[in-house]
Amino acid sequence: MKKTTRILLSEKEMPCQWYNIQADMPNKPMPPLNPVTHEPIGPEALAPVFPMELIKQEVSSERYIDIPEEVLDLYKTYRPSPMFRAINLEKALGTKSKIYYKYEGGNYSGSHKANTAIAQAYYNKKEGIKRITTETGAGQWGSAMSYACHHFGLELLVFMVKVSYDQKPGRKLLMNTYNARVIPSPSSMTAAGRKILEQDPNSPGSLGIAISEAMEIAVQDPYTKYSLGSVLNHVILHQTIIGQEALLQMEKAGDYPDVVIGCFGGGSNFSGIAFPFIRENLTKGTKTRCLTVEPSSCPKLTKGKFMYDFGDSAGMTPLLPMYTLGHNFIPEKIHAGGLRYHGAGVLVSQLLKDGLVEAKAKMQRECFEAGVLFARAEGILPAPESNYAIAGALDEARKADIEGVSKTILFNLSGHGHFDISAYEKFFEGNLPDHELTSAEVDASIAKIDLPV
Amino acid sequence: MKKTTRILLSEKEMPCQWYNIQADMPNKPMPPLNPVTHEPIGPEALAPVFPMELIKQEVSSERYIDIPEEVLDLYKTYRPSPMFRAINLEKALGTKSKIYYKYEGGNYSGSHKANTAIAQAYYNKKEGIKRITTETGAGQWGSAMSYACHHFGLELLVFMVKVSYDQKPGRKLLMNTYNARVIPSPSSMTAAGRKILEQDPNSPGSLGIAISEAMEIAVQDPYTKYSLGSVLNHVILHQTIIGQEALLQMEKAGDYPDVVIGCFGGGSNFSGIAFPFIRENLTKGTKTRCLTVEPSSCPKLTKGKFMYDFGDSAGMTPLLPMYTLGHNFIPEKIHAGGLRYHGAGVLVSQLLKDGLVEAKAKMQRECFEAGVLFARAEGILPAPESNYAIAGALDEARKADIEGVSKTILFNLSGHGHFDISAYEKFFEGNLPDHELTSAEVDASIAKIDLPV
Repeated sequence: MKKTTRILLSEKEMPCQWYNIQADMPNKPMPPLNPVTHEPIGPEALAPVFPMELIKQEVSSERYIDIPEEVLDLYKTYRPSPMFRAINLEKALGTKSKIYYKYEGGNYSGSHKANTAIAQAYYNKKEGIKRITTETGAGQWGSAMSYACHHFGLELLVFMVKVSYDQKPGRKLLMNTYNARVIPSPSSMTAAGRKILEQDPNSPGSLGIAISEAMEIAVQDPYTKYSLGSVLNHVILHQTIIGQEALLQMEKAGDYPDVVIGCFGGGSNFSGIAFPFIRENLTKGTKTRCLTVEPSSCPKLTKGKFMYDFGDSAGMTPLLPMYTLGHNFIPEKIHAGGLRYHGAGVLVSQLLKDGLVEAKAKMQRECFEAGVLFARAEGILPAPESNYAIAGALDEARKADIEGVSKTILFNLSGHGHFDISAYEKFFEGNLPDHELTSAEVDASIAKIDLPV
Repeated sequence: MKKTTRILLSEKEMPCQWYNIQADMPNKPMPPLNPVTHEPIGPEALAPVFPMELIKQEVSSERYIDIPEEVLDLYKTYRPSPMFRAINLEKALGTKSKIYYKYEGGNYSGSHKANTAIAQAYYNKKEGIKRITTETGAGQWGSAMSYACHHFGLELLVFMVKVSYDQKPGRKLLMNTYNARVIPSPSSMTAAGRKILEQDPNSPGSLGIAISEAMEIAVQDPYTKYSLGSVLNHVILHQTIIGQEALLQMEKAGDYPDVVIGCFGGGSNFSGIAFPFIRENLTKGTKTRCLTVEPSSCPKLTKGKFMYDFGDSAGMTPLLPMYTLGHNFIPEKIHAGGLRYHGAGVLVSQLLKDGLVEAKAKMQRECFEAGVLFARAEGILPAPESNYAIAGALDEARKADIEGVSKTILFNLSGHGHFDISAYEKFFEGNLPDHELTSAEVDASIAKIDLPV
């Protein structure tokens, strides 16, 4: 029988609800704490920063949340997204396993980030907000939010982590094309940025710093809100459309994954594909392993500590219970800019603690090798972030071949690498450094902060 | 009733035949001539350059040609391609007209070029060829051919027009990623290249020169063939899958185009979408206008002369009856590198002569303005080439609004602009020059050649 390589859903088959894993978690996450008093806070504390509907989603325990009509309308310009059976990659590997990937790079933004950008811009617009501030690392999130804000008639100010701003001028220009204003972070526009620049005028920046700057601007004006591209519960909620579709596509393919894999920055693309499969594990007794792959240079899940920490570097956010490297940690300048974040989202952190997800860390060069192998086989040039998921999938296939078994492997190809070509250039030139953070370095970074565990 | 924005076909609905317009043309094209004797040549004269199956397609008068299974397999990784109703663009324009576009940028290569690259690599492989040489302008064709050759186990050597090689390092690296070798043209690797470099060491190159270099290498070895990304009949044949799908999608949308528009370099993306609609005009009495849009700086269809000319600058190809600016013409360094070609394909030339297609020329800046308007409305950043089609569509919508009528407009969005972001940067900086070739300049260029008309 002929193998199908592209597994599509029709528009009518697109799920019209997001899945909220908080309804099914055996242990609910611990509450956020006030950054000053360290007392648990309620949702109202987030009101200066986010619109009310997103705050409700952040703390909701409803299992399913309806996707608004206006959001569905834009989703339908690129969703359902395709799933592929990676037949040519399987051939290149000579593996007995079956490898599938869900491709989220086919939309305007080039990554899964569009799924939450559209929702967040919509809810802000609906509540009368005029302007949004946000951060971006690799620029995928900023690009996604730029078009979404322009579409709904909102202004957007993006603080782009300086190392990515310098590495990826294409992403900045794309955001400009969509009418957004882009500032390299740390900047002198905010107190948080100026403080960092005083200590280190050449700071490469970090997502934590950029978040501090964006939040600082947002809280100064009632018509300006802040928007985050990963980590938070409502962001991850919006991404579950990926896994909801993937379940239907697996059914169409007549298959079911033994393992589901995503790269890991703050958690949004991994959670988006994996959470619906975790629901099936929890409610239907399936045994799909859900595996995160993070950079060895930013290994919060594999070497970080589970504790309360800030989401940003300046300590403006509520304290969140998460695996962290310490909120002042500045990762190496790896090219997977979207994975350069010190902490993990609360939901994934709790699930990892409870043994419901797995984590591994990998080096940069091996991940680019995997990405090039994938590009030559499947045609699509992956984002550097997605290369970590690919490398994780290759590990699983090779392990199964050694064990003499055939596994069904599904990974999330979160985005394309068209704006990351200079990283591939460095890889081909042999100029891509590997870096592994040691446990002692992690301890030293954690020791700098004085917070309740 | 809710408007559908994305019109999809299922895999089963994908046409499995290409359409050959030679079967339906009221006036068949004049024969190619021997470059030396100026006598009509038969297909066997092309044997040193192309594999036999492509030569057969070049001269075929069969109306439909079956797409081979192996080609369909790769097509199905990205086809049927989506058609969109440009609802947000219509809103941004405030037009009464309906605007549709067929999007060919969603595949690995980022443009329609994959449609013929896959077919050409397949037929070469099938006939035992080991290595292909080709030219590329903007790099879309080279990228498409690089992956296709790698997939079928062929080596590829690409002569990339120097101005594009310098403007678009991303495209070169993408080709390298797919294992192709890329040489800036003119190069010292060939006699044709050395001759140009002697005259002008700083020559920006042209598609005509790059073709000469690629052909020169190909004819030296029986296991090496040459491959062209546009102009020729077999190339255009492969692109008709676009229009074949578009007809079905228009039917699904319950609509039919008054005008079909494509940008024009050598003719492949325009012909791909338009030829099936011309068939309907010729055989069913529909009256769809088919409009090409070319750069004012390279206006072969609107200011060139219909005559026999060479396809390359060194005069190695057969003489072809076409609209041309003279085979030694070197166009301005506009950013739509794929449109920098001195001649038009034989089929489109004959159809234009017979009044079955229309042509207009437009300036670079206005086309980028149209592209940015499109990107902000529809999200997709267009290739600079595609901006000419968009500008043509906007003209049609505005004209209809002035006339107080509503038209149905369909254009081919031939590719994305992710590797052309530096061109957009220049546009935003106000550094994008406009250039219009005068009739006197065309006459002077034509006067340099001495050929039978």
